[in-house]
Amino acid sequence: MANDEIKQIWKVPEPTLRRLPWYLAFVKLLKGKGEAYVSSTQIAKEINVDSSQVAKDLSFVNITGKTRVGYEINTLVAVLEDFLGFTIQHKAFLFGVGSLGAALLQDSGLSQYGLDIIAGFDTRRELAGTSIKGIPVFHISEFPACQKELNATIGVITVPVDQAQSVTDHIISEGIKALWNFTPFRIRVPRHVVVQNTSMYAHLAVMFNRLNQLNRRNENYSCGNELCKPQ
Amino acid sequence: MANDEIKQIWKVPEPTLRRLPWYLAFVKLLKGKGEAYVSSTQIAKEINVDSSQVAKDLSFVNITGKTRVGYEINTLVAVLEDFLGFTIQHKAFLFGVGSLGAALLQDSGLSQYGLDIIAGFDTRRELAGTSIKGIPVFHISEFPACQKELNATIGVITVPVDQAQSVTDHIISEGIKALWNFTPFRIRVPRHVVVQNTSMYAHLAVMFNRLNQLNRRNENYSCGNELCKPQ
Repeated sequence: MANDEIKQIWKVPEPTLRRLPWYLAFVKLLKGKGEAYVSSTQIAKEINVDSSQVAKDLSFVNITGKTRVGYEINTLVAVLEDFLGFTIQHKAFLFGVGSLGAALLQDSGLSQYGLDIIAGFDTRRELAGTSIKGIPVFHISEFPACQKELNATIGVITVPVDQAQSVTDHIISEGIKALWNFTPFRIRVPRHVVVQNTSMYAHLAVMFNRLNQLNRRNENYSCGNELCKPQ
Repeated sequence: MANDEIKQIWKVPEPTLRRLPWYLAFVKLLKGKGEAYVSSTQIAKEINVDSSQVAKDLSFVNITGKTRVGYEINTLVAVLEDFLGFTIQHKAFLFGVGSLGAALLQDSGLSQYGLDIIAGFDTRRELAGTSIKGIPVFHISEFPACQKELNATIGVITVPVDQAQSVTDHIISEGIKALWNFTPFRIRVPRHVVVQNTSMYAHLAVMFNRLNQLNRRNENYSCGNELCKPQ
């Protein structure tokens, strides 16, 4: 986790960065339909966010809307994709070619959003020399040499929980600058390293809990249908 | 998105639900090391959260710590796994067997956390009749019949953005109660349906932005090393 001092230097707030891809997806849809302009009010209505929030979010991006017509769609798509880093390929190594790691190597969609995973590493000798969708898998001992040659900036961490911290320390020592952590372990990093946690299991936990609560709530109504409940 | 009225009925706050899996991962590590007890202070220190917050989070779970020694680890692991819904298999269908969808079908790890994807659906006829890791893929037209027979509660959405809303409407009409949305599209659902958004691309955007800012910041110091900067 970046510490507080680091956090203060971020120019763009994280909630803004998380909303911008929603806007991009919607605006790309409009582009596909042949539309020319979009207003922040339109985006706001679609995404279910305040229109002043949309305007504020877009103020971080280098684009100006025209009065009455709004933003020019082609420009907005290009500028957003560029701003979000989706137009540059960021070289990444993946650590831990288990079930989730192998799945991520399969997902060619990531490279369309700027993440170019160029190799996977694992401690299991039997995986060394194999490849997944053309991406080579090496034994972890080959990582320092690969890093010297290829100079990846991002490490995707999909190792078992008990190896998460040691792998983190190892890859940072070889010059990896940002970590995409898929493990449910809270890794610790020096302040000059970026961490993005994506805990799929935490998302599952939230979904299961909401589902259970709705189920229990519905059981309190005779017909078992949420729509039958007194409004 | 659940609307405000629905949100008020959630007994457990989302941030709590997102932190609990971090605690679980850490406590499981301690269990593996043969430890017997853990205090909220220990968890707090490891996860980098206030210890009062840890105690508050754990107050939602049915477990009581003992003064001085803390929580009994075996019980805490069992109670947390149960509370988070990881011990029950939730039947799910996956919609959109593209790159990401196929990758998720490959990830057997999900079933260890309670998500049992029992079939995939796609509009492409050539995929019908195939299977991935033993999970059958059907044409989308077969979904209503499959749903009547198997009664899945969760829909995993990995379709292209322009199909996200129509697929959402279709699967809700057949009785799916919760949606795990991997598309960058903000789907709209009736208030009795749960939505969990997992936008991998939004996470990439945050990581790329932080990385770029650190790079730019470092360029302002002659040695290019964050550690050389004046403190």
